[in-house]
Amino acid sequence: MTSTVIRNGRVVTAVDDYVADVLMENGRIVCIGEALQVGAHVAEVDATGMLVLPGGVDCHTHLENTFGESTTADDFRSGTKAAAFGGTTTIVDFAFQGRDVGVMQAIEAARGRAEGKAAVDYGFHLITTHVDDQALADLKLAIRNEGVTSFKMFMAYPGKVMVDDAAIFRAMRLVGQHGGVISLHAENGIVIEQLIREALDAGHTAPKYHGITRPALMEGEATHRGIKLAELAEAPVYFVHLSAREALAQVVEARDRGIPAFAETCPHYLFFDESAYEDDGFDVAKFVMSPPLRSKEAQRDLWRALKFDDLQVIATDHCPYCMKEGHLGHLKQKPFGKDDFSKIPNGAPGLEARMTVIYDGGVRPGLISLNRYVELTATAPAKIFGLFPRKGTIAVGSDADIVIFNPDERHVISAKTHHSDCDYTLFEGREVQGRVKKVFLRGEMIVDGDAWYGRDGSGAFLKRGETVMF
Amino acid sequence: MTSTVIRNGRVVTAVDDYVADVLMENGRIVCIGEALQVGAHVAEVDATGMLVLPGGVDCHTHLENTFGESTTADDFRSGTKAAAFGGTTTIVDFAFQGRDVGVMQAIEAARGRAEGKAAVDYGFHLITTHVDDQALADLKLAIRNEGVTSFKMFMAYPGKVMVDDAAIFRAMRLVGQHGGVISLHAENGIVIEQLIREALDAGHTAPKYHGITRPALMEGEATHRGIKLAELAEAPVYFVHLSAREALAQVVEARDRGIPAFAETCPHYLFFDESAYEDDGFDVAKFVMSPPLRSKEAQRDLWRALKFDDLQVIATDHCPYCMKEGHLGHLKQKPFGKDDFSKIPNGAPGLEARMTVIYDGGVRPGLISLNRYVELTATAPAKIFGLFPRKGTIAVGSDADIVIFNPDERHVISAKTHHSDCDYTLFEGREVQGRVKKVFLRGEMIVDGDAWYGRDGSGAFLKRGETVMF
Amino acid sequence: MTSTVIRNGRVVTAVDDYVADVLMENGRIVCIGEALQVGAHVAEVDATGMLVLPGGVDCHTHLENTFGESTTADDFRSGTKAAAFGGTTTIVDFAFQGRDVGVMQAIEAARGRAEGKAAVDYGFHLITTHVDDQALADLKLAIRNEGVTSFKMFMAYPGKVMVDDAAIFRAMRLVGQHGGVISLHAENGIVIEQLIREALDAGHTAPKYHGITRPALMEGEATHRGIKLAELAEAPVYFVHLSAREALAQVVEARDRGIPAFAETCPHYLFFDESAYEDDGFDVAKFVMSPPLRSKEAQRDLWRALKFDDLQVIATDHCPYCMKEGHLGHLKQKPFGKDDFSKIPNGAPGLEARMTVIYDGGVRPGLISLNRYVELTATAPAKIFGLFPRKGTIAVGSDADIVIFNPDERHVISAKTHHSDCDYTLFEGREVQGRVKKVFLRGEMIVDGDAWYGRDGSGAFLKRGETVMF
Amino acid sequence: MTSTVIRNGRVVTAVDDYVADVLMENGRIVCIGEALQVGAHVAEVDATGMLVLPGGVDCHTHLENTFGESTTADDFRSGTKAAAFGGTTTIVDFAFQGRDVGVMQAIEAARGRAEGKAAVDYGFHLITTHVDDQALADLKLAIRNEGVTSFKMFMAYPGKVMVDDAAIFRAMRLVGQHGGVISLHAENGIVIEQLIREALDAGHTAPKYHGITRPALMEGEATHRGIKLAELAEAPVYFVHLSAREALAQVVEARDRGIPAFAETCPHYLFFDESAYEDDGFDVAKFVMSPPLRSKEAQRDLWRALKFDDLQVIATDHCPYCMKEGHLGHLKQKPFGKDDFSKIPNGAPGLEARMTVIYDGGVRPGLISLNRYVELTATAPAKIFGLFPRKGTIAVGSDADIVIFNPDERHVISAKTHHSDCDYTLFEGREVQGRVKKVFLRGEMIVDGDAWYGRDGSGAFLKRGETVMF
Repeated sequence: MTSTVIRNGRVVTAVDDYVADVLMENGRIVCIGEALQVGAHVAEVDATGMLVLPGGVDCHTHLENTFGESTTADDFRSGTKAAAFGGTTTIVDFAFQGRDVGVMQAIEAARGRAEGKAAVDYGFHLITTHVDDQALADLKLAIRNEGVTSFKMFMAYPGKVMVDDAAIFRAMRLVGQHGGVISLHAENGIVIEQLIREALDAGHTAPKYHGITRPALMEGEATHRGIKLAELAEAPVYFVHLSAREALAQVVEARDRGIPAFAETCPHYLFFDESAYEDDGFDVAKFVMSPPLRSKEAQRDLWRALKFDDLQVIATDHCPYCMKEGHLGHLKQKPFGKDDFSKIPNGAPGLEARMTVIYDGGVRPGLISLNRYVELTATAPAKIFGLFPRKGTIAVGSDADIVIFNPDERHVISAKTHHSDCDYTLFEGREVQGRVKKVFLRGEMIVDGDAWYGRDGSGAFLKRGETVMF
Repeated sequence: MTSTVIRNGRVVTAVDDYVADVLMENGRIVCIGEALQVGAHVAEVDATGMLVLPGGVDCHTHLENTFGESTTADDFRSGTKAAAFGGTTTIVDFAFQGRDVGVMQAIEAARGRAEGKAAVDYGFHLITTHVDDQALADLKLAIRNEGVTSFKMFMAYPGKVMVDDAAIFRAMRLVGQHGGVISLHAENGIVIEQLIREALDAGHTAPKYHGITRPALMEGEATHRGIKLAELAEAPVYFVHLSAREALAQVVEARDRGIPAFAETCPHYLFFDESAYEDDGFDVAKFVMSPPLRSKEAQRDLWRALKFDDLQVIATDHCPYCMKEGHLGHLKQKPFGKDDFSKIPNGAPGLEARMTVIYDGGVRPGLISLNRYVELTATAPAKIFGLFPRKGTIAVGSDADIVIFNPDERHVISAKTHHSDCDYTLFEGREVQGRVKKVFLRGEMIVDGDAWYGRDGSGAFLKRGETVMF
Repeated sequence: MTSTVIRNGRVVTAVDDYVADVLMENGRIVCIGEALQVGAHVAEVDATGMLVLPGGVDCHTHLENTFGESTTADDFRSGTKAAAFGGTTTIVDFAFQGRDVGVMQAIEAARGRAEGKAAVDYGFHLITTHVDDQALADLKLAIRNEGVTSFKMFMAYPGKVMVDDAAIFRAMRLVGQHGGVISLHAENGIVIEQLIREALDAGHTAPKYHGITRPALMEGEATHRGIKLAELAEAPVYFVHLSAREALAQVVEARDRGIPAFAETCPHYLFFDESAYEDDGFDVAKFVMSPPLRSKEAQRDLWRALKFDDLQVIATDHCPYCMKEGHLGHLKQKPFGKDDFSKIPNGAPGLEARMTVIYDGGVRPGLISLNRYVELTATAPAKIFGLFPRKGTIAVGSDADIVIFNPDERHVISAKTHHSDCDYTLFEGREVQGRVKKVFLRGEMIVDGDAWYGRDGSGAFLKRGETVMF
Repeated sequence: MTSTVIRNGRVVTAVDDYVADVLMENGRIVCIGEALQVGAHVAEVDATGMLVLPGGVDCHTHLENTFGESTTADDFRSGTKAAAFGGTTTIVDFAFQGRDVGVMQAIEAARGRAEGKAAVDYGFHLITTHVDDQALADLKLAIRNEGVTSFKMFMAYPGKVMVDDAAIFRAMRLVGQHGGVISLHAENGIVIEQLIREALDAGHTAPKYHGITRPALMEGEATHRGIKLAELAEAPVYFVHLSAREALAQVVEARDRGIPAFAETCPHYLFFDESAYEDDGFDVAKFVMSPPLRSKEAQRDLWRALKFDDLQVIATDHCPYCMKEGHLGHLKQKPFGKDDFSKIPNGAPGLEARMTVIYDGGVRPGLISLNRYVELTATAPAKIFGLFPRKGTIAVGSDADIVIFNPDERHVISAKTHHSDCDYTLFEGREVQGRVKKVFLRGEMIVDGDAWYGRDGSGAFLKRGETVMF
C-alpha cells in the first residue's frame, strides 16, 4: 500500500488550523509534523497554499433509491464518483425496511446495491416504516451487529412511508437506549396531502404547486411534535433537511432547554428560495424537493443557526432525478409528473457541489468560519452518526481521507462537467471560488484535478458506532 | 533547549481524541504521530493511560491586584505556581487604567508586576474605568501595539470602577472595530449599593448579607443592558463570571438572534449555591465574591449552557484573600470586613483547583464531554482572547504547553497542600478523581508530581491578537 | 309574567361594580337605577350586602352523554337543577355527529334529550367525528340555521372519536369563515393509547395509571398542533379543559403573536393536582378525567393566565359518573373499570360547585378580581359562544338571568346536599365562603336558598350566534 | 342642577353594548333603562343611531408644562376645551417635584395652574426627580391626603429630570406598598445623550436627527430595566408612551410571567412611522417627540398588543409646541431648535384628535372592537389611575361624563378648526369617520356640535384613589 506525505498544506480541522506535513500509511494518518523525514518509498505531494481538509462526510444521500415508481439517477458508481470529485469521501445512504421487508433483509439489500460499485466509503441509515415488537428487536440487532445505528422515520407521505407518532415514540425510546438515533423527515403529511388534493382538484398541476402545498407551518408543526416525542422517549432526535424558520425555532427552543435535538440543513435551502416557485413552467421541477424552498428570511436564520451551532450538519439530501426523461436510460424521472406535480419525484442533486458552494458562499463571505465549515461538513456528521474518529477529522490514527483544496481557484459549476448521472445541477453556471484538487481515500489518491483514479468497489461499508452528540 | 517526546498518551483536543506520541522541540509541538522515531537527545515521557491535554488557559485571574485597600494574596510568583500545579499554563490577568493612570502606563505597570516572577505565560486585560477621546485613542494603540486586545468594564461598584452606559457603548464600538472585545462585570451597581446601605442601616453586617444584597435579578438586568449596548455598538460582548440564570437567559436569547454575546462562568458557581449564605458566622466570608453564589436551579442551567455552547468558557476569577489576617504577611484580607460585610474584599481562590474539579464534577458524571472540557478550559478562552493557535490546543506549531493528566488517580483538595498563598480553598476536603501529573510550559517540564521545576520569570508576556469568536 | 326588582345589591359585571336596583320585566332586564320607583305588581327582593351577578354560563357540560358504554349520571333534569343551585343559568352541552349520524340528526337528538327536562337555558356544541364534503356543508347549515356555531373535535381517543389533522384543518377553515369556532380536546391520542397499552401489559390496572399514561407533554404537543392548524386555516381555535403548563405555554405564545387562540380551564385543575395519583386504591377513580390532574406548578400558571387573560373561561367539563355502581340506577359507572383503568369512564362532576369554589378559592385570596370572576364564568363564555349580550352580563335588554350571592356566608360542599345525581363531589367537605342565595332565570326565581322553584322544561334551547372573541 | 335623559342611544362600555335611555341627575348617572319615564324638568336628548360612550380619560397630557425654557402651547383653558371637543372629559396632567420644589408644593402649584381655567375634570401625576427620605415620606402623604397616587420618573434626560435606578427602585417599593404606581419614561438617556452629542459634532442639526439619535433598542433596554426594578421592588410599573417593538416585547414577556407591568401607547405611534424622518426640512419638527416614531412593524405589533391587552391604554402625551414662533404669543416653541434639533421642544398635540382617530383607524378596520376602544380610552386609564368607577364607564352611580358620538359622520381634521392653541395637528387634512356630537361633564352639556357651553373652571380637581390593575 502506498505511503504519501502531503507537504506544507494548511491543515484545518473543526478546531485547529496550522501548516504541517501529513503522513499517510496503510490507509491511516500516522504522523503530522513539521518537515517530516520520510523514506524514499513515500510519495510526496506538495500542498503549499492549499487547504488540507478531512474528506467530507455527507450523511444524507439517495443513490439508486426507489421511491414510488421512480429510482434516483445516480447509482453507487456514478454517485460516489460525484461525491469524490466534490471532496466527499464518506456517505451515509439508506436501507429500506417495510412491512414486507425485514430489518436485516433491508440492510443486506442496501449493501448489495453498493458493493463492487462504491468508490468512497459508505454506511446506511435504515428507513423504518413499520414498528412492531419484532421490528424493535431487529433495530437493536442492527445497532449491535450490523453497524446500522441511525433510523429515519417519515412524518410525511401517508400511505407510503409515514409512520404514526406511537411508532416514532417507541423507536426513539428503544434506539436511544442503545446509543443510536432516530432521524425524522418532519412535515405534517396528513395536512399536506389534503392541500395537494385540493390543489389538483383546482386544476393546479404545475410544479410550482409543490412548494405551495407544503407550507413552512407544517414543517414547524412536525418538528415540534418530533421534539416532544423525543422528550417523552428521553432520547435524542435528529431532523433531516430542516428548511423552515418555524422548524428551526423549535430546535432552538429545545436546545435552550437542554433537549438533545439536532438538525441538518442542505445547500439548496441556503442558496435558493421560494421565489423559484413563482414560475408556471416545468423547469421549476428542478426545485421539487421536500421540504420545498423557503423564504429569504429562513435562509438568514439558517446561516445564523449554522454559525451558532443550532444546526449541526450540512448534508445534501442528494436525490437526483433527471429533467429529461430517458437521460442515460433513467425513466420515470421529473417529467413523470409533467401533468401532475404530485407525481414529480421529489429531490435534487447536490452531492458534488456541497463542499465548494458552502466554501464559496458560506466561508468566503464570513457567514461561517473555516473551522466551522469542516465541522458542519465532516466532523459533526461523523460524530453524530458514529463514524468518528475514523472519519471527519485529520488526526493521528484516523482514516487518511483527505481533500487538498485550493481556496483561490475559481471555476464554474455545470452539469456538463460534473460526474453525477443527473442531467442538471441547481448551481448551473455559478462561478465559485475554491476547488477540490486532490482527494485521498484511506491514503489512496482517487481524484487528481480532473483525473479519476477511483475504482468501482474501492469504497468500503462502514459499520457505525454509537452517536456522539456533544 | 530540551526536546521531549510524550509517548502513548491519549491526546485530547476540543475536537479530537486519539493515542499518539507528541514531540516537543524548541518550545513548540513539532510532530504528532505513531511510534515516533526520535534522536537520542530527546527526553522520553511515558503517558500510557494518561490524558495528554493542552495546558489550561485561565482568562480571569487577579494576582497582586489591589481593590480599595486590599491586595489579593497571590502575586505572580505564588499565583502562577498554583496555576501550574493546577494544569494551567496561561493566565490573563488585569492592568488598571483610571482617571489618573493612562492606558499605556497601566499596561506597563501590570507587566512590571509579573516580570521576573511569573512561572507561566500571561497576558493582560485592561480594566477601563475612564473613557474619553484620549482613552479611546489609547485603546486602539493597546490593541495594535501592546497586544492588549480585551478590556473589562464594570457595571457595578459605583464611585469606584463603575462606568456609565455611554462609556461602555463608546468603548465597545471602538474596540469592536479593531478586533478586540469588551468584557463586562454585569451587575446593577447603583441598586446594589442601595441594598447594601439599607442592610447596613438595619444592622445586617454579617457576610451572609453580601449574598442577599446582590440579587440575581440585578445581574440579569445588567446583562441585558450590556447586550443591548453591544447591539447598538455592533460589537461583540463577553460577560465575565456569569452566575445567575436570569443573566444566562439573556445571553441565550441574544445568541438565538445572532448577537455575538459570550460568557464565562466559574467553578464556584457550578459547585456551590446560595445556601452557603444561610449561616450567620464569619466563615461565610469565604463565599464573599461578586456575583455571589446563586440557586441550585441556576447551577443546572449553567451546566446545560456549558454543554450546548451557550457558555463558552470556564475561568476562575481567582481573587484570593486570606481568612486569617496577616497570613504570610497579607493584610486587610477577609477579616477587614468582619464588622461590615461591605468591607470584606470580594473574591475567592480557584486557579489551582479548576482543571481538576471540572474534570471530576463535570466530565465524569457526563455533564460535559472530554472534548468540551478542553474547549471550555483552554481552547475557547485562547481563541476569544487572541491567543490561538499558540495556546489552547495540541497541534503542530503550537506552544508545547501540555498537561499529563491521570484520569483515574484520586486525591483530596486542601489548602494545606495547595501552592497558592491563600489560606483556604472552597474545595477543602473534597476528594476528586483526576490529577495533574506533569506540566510542560513551552516544552519545559515545570511540574512533575509534587515537584516544582518552574522558575521565577520563566513565564512570558503574551501579546495577544484579535478575538476569534466562532 | 312576574316583574321583580332587586334592591340595593352590589351589581358586578365584567367591568362594573356599583350598588343599584335592577328591574326585571318579561324575562329581561329593563331598568337599572337608584331607588327605582316601580308599580305595586312588582315583586321586591332585598339584596343589601349581596352581590348581584349575571347568571353563570358553563360552556362545557355533559348531561346524559354516552361515551363508549357509559352514560353520565346527570340528565338534563338533575344536571340543570344542579347548575341552577350552583348559580349557573346557561349551559352548552353536546350533540354527537358521527359516520352514521348526520349533523342535523345529531342536533335534533341532542335537543330531544333536553326538551321538557332542562330547567336552565341550554345550547349545544356539535362533536364532529367525521369530516367529508357533506359534513362540511352541514356544518355551514348548523351555523346558519340551527344556532349551533361551535364544534368540538378530538385529538385523543383513536378509534373512537379522534379525527386526523386534515379533518381539523378543513373544519377550522370552513367554520372560521362562517363565524363559528372549533374547540379541541388536545391530547396526542395515538401516543397515549400506546402508553395505556404498555401500562396494562405491565399489569398496571389501578386508576392512578390513568394520570400517568396521559403526560402533560402530550397535551402540550397537541395544543401546539391545534394552533398551527388554526394558523394554516386562518381561523380561531378554542381549547377545552386546558390543564398542562406545556399546553398553556403554547396558547400564550400564540396570543403573543396575534393568533386568536382561546382556552378554558376547569375548577379541578385549579384546586387539585397530580399527587392525587399517588394512591393505589380505587378511590382515585374520582380523579379519572382527561386530561388528568397536573403539577402544582401548572396550577400556579393557570391562575396567572386567568388573571392576565391568557385563559378566557372557567368551565366545568361536568361529566359525572358515580363511584357506586347502580347509584340511582346508573350503570357502567366508575367501577366499570375497577380491573382496568382504561375502562373507567372519564370525567368528574363540577357544575354545581363552580361558581362557589372559584369565588372562594380565586376571588377571596386575590388571585382574580371580582370583575374577572364574572368575566371568566359568564361574560367570556357567552361572547365566545355567541350568547352575548343575551347571556353573560347585567345590562338593559339582556335576559334577566341573575344570581344573588352572599359573599360572606360559609357552607360546606357535600354530595349529601348537592343536587346532581352523582354520588360524589371532588370538593366533599370543603368549607367555602360565598353562597348562591337566589337565582333568576329570565326573570323567574328558580332557586331561593334551599328551595327549588324551577320546572322541568323551563329551560329553553338557545340558538347561538357568531363567536365574539375580542 | 339640570337633569337630562339621553334617549335610544347605543350605550357602549368596556364590556356591554345595548340600546337604552340614560338618566343623569345631580351630575351622576342615576338610571339606565328602556323607555324611562321622567319628570317634565328633565331635558331630553335624542341619541338614536348614536353611540353613547363614557367620557374619554386621557391620562397623559401636558398643559402649561414647562420643560427647559419652553412651555407647552395649551394652558388648562385651551387644552381642556380641546379635550372636551375631542370627547375627553377627564385628563391627568403633571405636577413637578424637584430638588428645590417639594412634593406638596409641587401639587399645590399644579392645582394653581388649573384652577379657574379647566373646563373638564383633572388630576395630576407627580413628576419625581429627586428621591430621598423626605421625598419618600411626602409621596406617602401625597397618596393618602392629596389624591395624587401616581408618580412619573424619567430614565431619560440626564442632568434634567433623569433619576438613577436606585431612586426608581426606592420610589416603586414605597409607592407600591401604598396602592400607587410609578410610571416610567423608558429610554436610556445616557446613551441617547451621547448619540445626540455625536450627531451635533458631526453637524447633523436637522430635526430628523432627533429620531435617529433615539434608537428603539434603547427604549427596549430601559423598559427591561424598569420591569426588573419593579420585580425587585415587588411593585407594579406603568410605561408611558411605549412606542418600540423592543419595548413592547419586554412588557409582553413580563406579563407572561405574571409581573404587573402596564403600558400605554399614543395615537401618533399608531398612525405615523419613522419614514417621517427621511426629510431634511424643518417641518419634521412636528414629529419631534420622545420616543420618536418607530417602524411600520412596530405599529403592527402595537395594534396586536392593544387587541390582546398587552397594552392597556391609549393616551396622547399631548405636549403641544407651535411650529410658528410667537403663535398666540407662545415663545421658544419648535423653531427654538431650528439650528440644533436637540433644542426643539419635544412633543406633539393629540388631545383633541384621540377619540376620533382611534375610532376611525382602529375600530372601523377591525383592529380593535368597540368595547375595547372604550376600555383603552376611558375605562382602563380610569382604573389604573384610581378614578374608577367615578370615571371611565357608564354605570349607575358614576359621574355623568358622557359622549354622544356619531359613528357615521365624516369630517376633516385640521388645525384651522381645532380648539387647541397649537398651530398644527399631526392629522391635518385627514378625513375620518366618527364624530363627537355632544359632551356631558357631570351631567352638564359642555359641547353641542360646534357650540361650546363649557366654562372656565367648570372642571374639578380629582383626588384619585388606589390603582386597580386587573
